[in-house]
Amino acid sequence: MIVYGDLQSGNCLKVKLLLSLLGVEHEWKHVNILEKETQSPEFLSLNPNGKIPTVVLDDGRVLCESNAILGYFAEDTHYLPSDSFQKAKVYEWLFFEQYSHEPYIAVARFIQKYQGMPEHRVDEYHSLQSGGNKALAIMEQQLAETEFLVGSTITIADISLYAYTHVAHEGGFELTDYPNIQRWIDEIASLDGYIGMS
Amino acid sequence: MIVYGDLQSGNCLKVKLLLSLLGVEHEWKHVNILEKETQSPEFLSLNPNGKIPTVVLDDGRVLCESNAILGYFAEDTHYLPSDSFQKAKVYEWLFFEQYSHEPYIAVARFIQKYQGMPEHRVDEYHSLQSGGNKALAIMEQQLAETEFLVGSTITIADISLYAYTHVAHEGGFELTDYPNIQRWIDEIASLDGYIGMS
Ligand SMILES: N[C@@H](CCC(=O)N[C@@H](CS)C(=O)NCC(=O)O)C(=O)O
Ligand SMILES: N[C@@H](CCC(=O)N[C@@H](CS)C(=O)NCC(=O)O)C(=O)O
Repeated sequence: MIVYGDLQSGNCLKVKLLLSLLGVEHEWKHVNILEKETQSPEFLSLNPNGKIPTVVLDDGRVLCESNAILGYFAEDTHYLPSDSFQKAKVYEWLFFEQYSHEPYIAVARFIQKYQGMPEHRVDEYHSLQSGGNKALAIMEQQLAETEFLVGSTITIADISLYAYTHVAHEGGFELTDYPNIQRWIDEIASLDGYIGMS
Repeated sequence: MIVYGDLQSGNCLKVKLLLSLLGVEHEWKHVNILEKETQSPEFLSLNPNGKIPTVVLDDGRVLCESNAILGYFAEDTHYLPSDSFQKAKVYEWLFFEQYSHEPYIAVARFIQKYQGMPEHRVDEYHSLQSGGNKALAIMEQQLAETEFLVGSTITIADISLYAYTHVAHEGGFELTDYPNIQRWIDEIASLDGYIGMS
């Protein structure tokens, strides 16, 4: 199995982290986004949306979208509950991540860390702060009630949201305002098989 | 069961459409977004993210995120394959919808149809066109190969993407450029139990 990705990207890191926790063997192929390697004809023939992570299974079938990849590998493991309501709550957090968290926190981080805050994106950067803090406040509220996002055991909801949350300070978000998120980050970082940004 | 929603919203329509196709009884409570009813303390106590659709099951448990709601009700029906790879492909399309389709097509439609193209959003409206057309082109490519988005039977991937695609012209997108999408829209609209925007 081949995983195309970049470990600076939270969307890719979440896949790497789950595969590492599960001990699933794979080949990691680094893809350079800034050099537009996701837009080459070869890459687009794998994923017409031109995005990483993209997984090619041993039989050649292709799977894209970080959170769909997590769902695939988590099935029948304790990272995805079998109870249908609990499973739906995990997916609720995964959709929350893509719609209400990543577009604020990952984008602010990209502007600050990778683009070095270019003048023409400063307004946008500032406008992303309130959405990102709203997402963090919603997580904080849940993590004040339960140990993990869905109950008392870790699921792919935690792995997905961990990816950009633990580097949110690189996008200007103060995690010291969110004590339960900090406790949860420490818990995930101490797991056997843990792997972080590199 | 109570579903909080607004049938002008594609995110809500997709839930209504699946429940109607499955014949699941429910009470529909209309929520007015423009009057900020999603931001009332009562509503925020159900969904701290303040968004519709939001479902309250008979036992009081709450489920949010349109595509997570689809997954919950589709389980063990033919709208969600049981094969784990096919199921992951359905979720791939659901995440694609929230990340690469809805933020372009639904937002352009909102600006054009509900806000009447205010001056301060005209540039943003134009900048959304290429992302929306890219998403439509990816769907067209798939629908030229297979009858539905994941193989030869309808799944919640189709129901989810149908919601904003069939009204994409209200956001400035020319569906005549996408013959296979048009064929697919007609097929969905002719299903028993079909329900559209109202
Ligand atoms: N919804 C996608 C988002 C993936 C995504 O945006 N990947 C970025 C890197 S973090 C990418 O490949 N960007 C390159 C491009 O869009 O050309 C997922 O969750 O996998
Ligand atoms: N990711 C959410 C998006 C839901 C969403 O954005 N709903 C809009 C209506 S289409 C809403 O409730 N907006 C009101 C608000 O954000 O205050 C889903 O798929 O359910």
